[in-house]
Amino acid sequence: MHVYRLKSPGNLGGLALLEEDVPVPKPTEIVLRVHAMSINRRDAMIIGGTYPLPARNDVIPISDGAGEVIAVGNSVTRFKTGDRATGSYWPRWRDGLLTPDLIDQLGCTMDGMLAEYAVLDEQSAVHVPEHLTWEEAATLTCAGVTAWSAVAGSRRMHPGQTVLTLGTGGVALFALQFAKMMGCRVIAATSREAKIAKLRDLGADHVIDYARTPQWADTVRDLTGGKGVDLVVETIGPKTIGQSLAAAGLYGHIVLLSVIDSDGNDLVLPGQVYSRTMASLSRVFVGSRAGLEAMCAAIGSHRIRPVIDRVFPFTEAREAYRYFMRGDVFGKVVIRAA
Amino acid sequence: MHVYRLKSPGNLGGLALLEEDVPVPKPTEIVLRVHAMSINRRDAMIIGGTYPLPARNDVIPISDGAGEVIAVGNSVTRFKTGDRATGSYWPRWRDGLLTPDLIDQLGCTMDGMLAEYAVLDEQSAVHVPEHLTWEEAATLTCAGVTAWSAVAGSRRMHPGQTVLTLGTGGVALFALQFAKMMGCRVIAATSREAKIAKLRDLGADHVIDYARTPQWADTVRDLTGGKGVDLVVETIGPKTIGQSLAAAGLYGHIVLLSVIDSDGNDLVLPGQVYSRTMASLSRVFVGSRAGLEAMCAAIGSHRIRPVIDRVFPFTEAREAYRYFMRGDVFGKVVIRAA
Amino acid sequence: MHVYRLKSPGNLGGLALLEEDVPVPKPTEIVLRVHAMSINRRDAMIIGGTYPLPARNDVIPISDGAGEVIAVGNSVTRFKTGDRATGSYWPRWRDGLLTPDLIDQLGCTMDGMLAEYAVLDEQSAVHVPEHLTWEEAATLTCAGVTAWSAVAGSRRMHPGQTVLTLGTGGVALFALQFAKMMGCRVIAATSREAKIAKLRDLGADHVIDYARTPQWADTVRDLTGGKGVDLVVETIGPKTIGQSLAAAGLYGHIVLLSVIDSDGNDLVLPGQVYSRTMASLSRVFVGSRAGLEAMCAAIGSHRIRPVIDRVFPFTEAREAYRYFMRGDVFGKVVIRAA
Amino acid sequence: MHVYRLKSPGNLGGLALLEEDVPVPKPTEIVLRVHAMSINRRDAMIIGGTYPLPARNDVIPISDGAGEVIAVGNSVTRFKTGDRATGSYWPRWRDGLLTPDLIDQLGCTMDGMLAEYAVLDEQSAVHVPEHLTWEEAATLTCAGVTAWSAVAGSRRMHPGQTVLTLGTGGVALFALQFAKMMGCRVIAATSREAKIAKLRDLGADHVIDYARTPQWADTVRDLTGGKGVDLVVETIGPKTIGQSLAAAGLYGHIVLLSVIDSDGNDLVLPGQVYSRTMASLSRVFVGSRAGLEAMCAAIGSHRIRPVIDRVFPFTEAREAYRYFMRGDVFGKVVIRAA
Repeated sequence: MHVYRLKSPGNLGGLALLEEDVPVPKPTEIVLRVHAMSINRRDAMIIGGTYPLPARNDVIPISDGAGEVIAVGNSVTRFKTGDRATGSYWPRWRDGLLTPDLIDQLGCTMDGMLAEYAVLDEQSAVHVPEHLTWEEAATLTCAGVTAWSAVAGSRRMHPGQTVLTLGTGGVALFALQFAKMMGCRVIAATSREAKIAKLRDLGADHVIDYARTPQWADTVRDLTGGKGVDLVVETIGPKTIGQSLAAAGLYGHIVLLSVIDSDGNDLVLPGQVYSRTMASLSRVFVGSRAGLEAMCAAIGSHRIRPVIDRVFPFTEAREAYRYFMRGDVFGKVVIRAA
Repeated sequence: MHVYRLKSPGNLGGLALLEEDVPVPKPTEIVLRVHAMSINRRDAMIIGGTYPLPARNDVIPISDGAGEVIAVGNSVTRFKTGDRATGSYWPRWRDGLLTPDLIDQLGCTMDGMLAEYAVLDEQSAVHVPEHLTWEEAATLTCAGVTAWSAVAGSRRMHPGQTVLTLGTGGVALFALQFAKMMGCRVIAATSREAKIAKLRDLGADHVIDYARTPQWADTVRDLTGGKGVDLVVETIGPKTIGQSLAAAGLYGHIVLLSVIDSDGNDLVLPGQVYSRTMASLSRVFVGSRAGLEAMCAAIGSHRIRPVIDRVFPFTEAREAYRYFMRGDVFGKVVIRAA
Repeated sequence: MHVYRLKSPGNLGGLALLEEDVPVPKPTEIVLRVHAMSINRRDAMIIGGTYPLPARNDVIPISDGAGEVIAVGNSVTRFKTGDRATGSYWPRWRDGLLTPDLIDQLGCTMDGMLAEYAVLDEQSAVHVPEHLTWEEAATLTCAGVTAWSAVAGSRRMHPGQTVLTLGTGGVALFALQFAKMMGCRVIAATSREAKIAKLRDLGADHVIDYARTPQWADTVRDLTGGKGVDLVVETIGPKTIGQSLAAAGLYGHIVLLSVIDSDGNDLVLPGQVYSRTMASLSRVFVGSRAGLEAMCAAIGSHRIRPVIDRVFPFTEAREAYRYFMRGDVFGKVVIRAA
Repeated sequence: MHVYRLKSPGNLGGLALLEEDVPVPKPTEIVLRVHAMSINRRDAMIIGGTYPLPARNDVIPISDGAGEVIAVGNSVTRFKTGDRATGSYWPRWRDGLLTPDLIDQLGCTMDGMLAEYAVLDEQSAVHVPEHLTWEEAATLTCAGVTAWSAVAGSRRMHPGQTVLTLGTGGVALFALQFAKMMGCRVIAATSREAKIAKLRDLGADHVIDYARTPQWADTVRDLTGGKGVDLVVETIGPKTIGQSLAAAGLYGHIVLLSVIDSDGNDLVLPGQVYSRTMASLSRVFVGSRAGLEAMCAAIGSHRIRPVIDRVFPFTEAREAYRYFMRGDVFGKVVIRAA
């Protein structure tokens, strides 16, 4: 089989395409024929060597991928050959709270999905919704669960409340879809005029072009009758946190997905703004297998289709990374294996 | 104006239609021209003298009604004449927990809505969603908020989870609509074959005819892959609780709206069933003004239309009660004033 | 080593004392020299063959035991020889919610602690607080965690609230101790006058003799200024639930540990009582490893000493069961291995 | 009676001591003979004109005071003459969430307590615990409830968890006392060596001198076995938030009481630190009347004694402010009326 391994972090030159044997499952493992993978910001950081958790030497990168089970270990009970499956971001975190002994990550400290075949412990894999294509099923593990944890996992929202999303990356678009599914109103902000219509098509009730309106929090407040939003899915970070806080309602909640930017800027919470609100902030680190399963049930029940920006062939994985890093996406960047 | 007052609880003969002056608001009060009212089980119990909270002598019955503000006291700030408003079930319960000093109820210990004009403290009234007719707006106070508290207020649910509703009364239908609005799957049970199609039209994913299947919990478990439901909106009580418990999932929750029936039967939780689950039970007593406001926002945002079974003219209020008490309804029984 | 195995459920005659080799750990396992074990109601039911989950053939019974780690598998990281450890009731349930694939139980579907040596997967074992004797450390797994889940796990309580405990079994006494540790006031009910002083010594603010006062809920209400308690730890069930409900406050919560009794009686919730309250009910099935760890931290931090009624030598395990089943205990019945 | 009114915000020169008639209660009001008052940071900001909510012209300042009910309006039901009472910070916020229509504050937009007699709506007053002196009872409204909301109101804590307090102001000391009452371990940080012993006497398990250890978060982590604390009561703000975040555990929570400092510095969340934790932040704005009542119940039940730094006579109120503003306090600064 063909497989990419990260020989030396730093840049895409460190990513080697190799030929290896198809893996054989141990008793509790399954082997997937991986049909598609998708790229997340953390995957780019792992290649670049800037991810907080150091990658294992020669690791197979990428956490997100979906494929068909082609072999199962002899004590496997959750899967059979022919099943469609994907992996859980933290293979050892099943439910409840993350603890230090569970910090292994797919495609970082453990081999991931950028290979024609992948091996997973059966406890770290889940079935994917039937209606999804392989490309769509390959987007769930990281961006999907992150958005799920941010919007549905908190269980803070009720129908009629308002959610603000920023940008058009994978997490933002999943968050928009999940928030609509929960009966919330969504205000989506983008800096690209060309994406306004697409956000509307996806269900956004209002779209703000924040390149044109630096004080976009004022627009958000106007759109909410002065009250501000109930939830901000803060996918950007230091550059937007001030306006996000200003856009949040009296008990608004801001889920932080990014707390530092590529220039090393920290989050600054403007005191004049913050002294007028009881807004709270919390972080999300993807989620447990229980979250992935709950999200898959909801996606299946609502027949939600993840948004895919562009698909690259397996042999052009490096080009897929480059395209992703340029940043001007609308949804997920996917790699397709045969 | 015309007004009904309960001269002697026991039966509908105790309900007198009188002629009185239109009320004049005190400084913090508003006066409504009430255009429609609706009947709830508790209203029938109040007429019958079986409601746990004794009614005030000569009270104007009925908690639910909607109308136009035609006069405001001189310190009123929340309303102006011309606004469309309804009352909060517990006029003094604004938010948080109910306490003994807040137990006044509209149409029971305080004058209610069965009158051409009604007077409310402005703090006990809320604006109704714009898209609703008067008949629809008159269904929110009791059945609407009860269903809201049961389904959305608990904040236990996430999209993809399953809710079970029983029957086709006002609370059950609101619960069905709210659960769908939140992205949940709904299994609706009815004992009338003729109502199956109507429940489907309202959004039920599955409908069970429980007259024909006494062990209907088995059907519910089959429909949920053996897992059981996440929430039961238990609008019936002693006759159904055993099957409701059997239909609940491992962490299922049962919201009890009725804990005793007209024959005086108590709730019995079958131990053989209960020893296999961690299901929890809680009660709902309508809800606070904050709940009513949140529900109105959601109904407005989703343009939900309450389901009305039948409308009676104001002069036939007693006939409306009789029709309601016969029990074979699909949605709310409404009384229309001119 | 000596070990008891359940050859045939039904009565204590089915419990055989055998001689076996000391177990050798697999890579992820640890072996304990078990110094003490304790008996819970479920252990008696397993012997009797009445426990809902059928026991494995020839299982080593008893979930609760503590001992010294005398051997570790070669991939064990959580323990080293010499550590003091106990097991988690559901060896595979680490955190979050219990799911059907995690239902193995120590001393039921998996070998338990009634042996001089026991083998546990390292993930199913936890360190015990340093200040505890072996006898005390052997009481935590089932009764301790059950009480913890009931009182502290719900996180419903704040200091100054009132908790009601029933009887003087292991769960009730742990619940009393945990509730006091959380700053709650405790009302303890017992049917034995001789135990009143002991309950007071353990920290109960008030003790009710409910053998003498059949309507003991009235006494509870008097003691709470008419308000009722915030939490009832319902360790008894059908015989007491009516008074428990009557003793609960408007938003009181009842944790059900027992939902059927030995005579097969179900829980009956008296409608006349329940129609006046918003009390909620939930169940507890011991708890996860995360709960056991949190409880051990609290017990360690507060230097709480579990209450032991009586200690039997290992060779008299059957007599220990018989004594336990007679029911008149104050705390835990412990078996001591050399 | 003698009363202070704020004639012109800016400095203590704007605080005028006047002679006025003793107020007469309206039907729902009570009149207190105020025996003691206490000063909070917000009171100093109101005098200085820097509080976010502008003070009413000529307002009687100070939110905290306690006294004897000497007159009641004719529809008052909650109090009788002779009762001991204090006021609720937000007189109109009873329970649940704060809303914009409830933002009146005692001693800011409404007359407060710096007077020999004060008038309160009965709904905005509560009874004070019996065991407290007048001076002690005068410390509850602002600092007490703020600490209660931060520590007990969140209901996030369970016994054995660790709370970090900063400094020795009123909120920090109440938080220490409440955390101990809930069975938590407390690490208290102070910059004054002289206060270390006093913090220990009050129950702190560990005291850190953070003047001597700029990287005091390292000390906190050492004291928690590397795990960090579960709750930080962040009473300081911009100067300490970086270390507070570094001291917080993986799921640690930081309650922010101050989000800007007197030099206008904002909160900065260091990204390198924050990228390693899921710590959350929330704000507290004192609390509702329900919170005040729950706290009084707990204080009464545990016979907690608020810590008083120094007491000034009524005629020296300005000197009390000056002393408070110098900042080197251990507990509350109180003013005593005859």
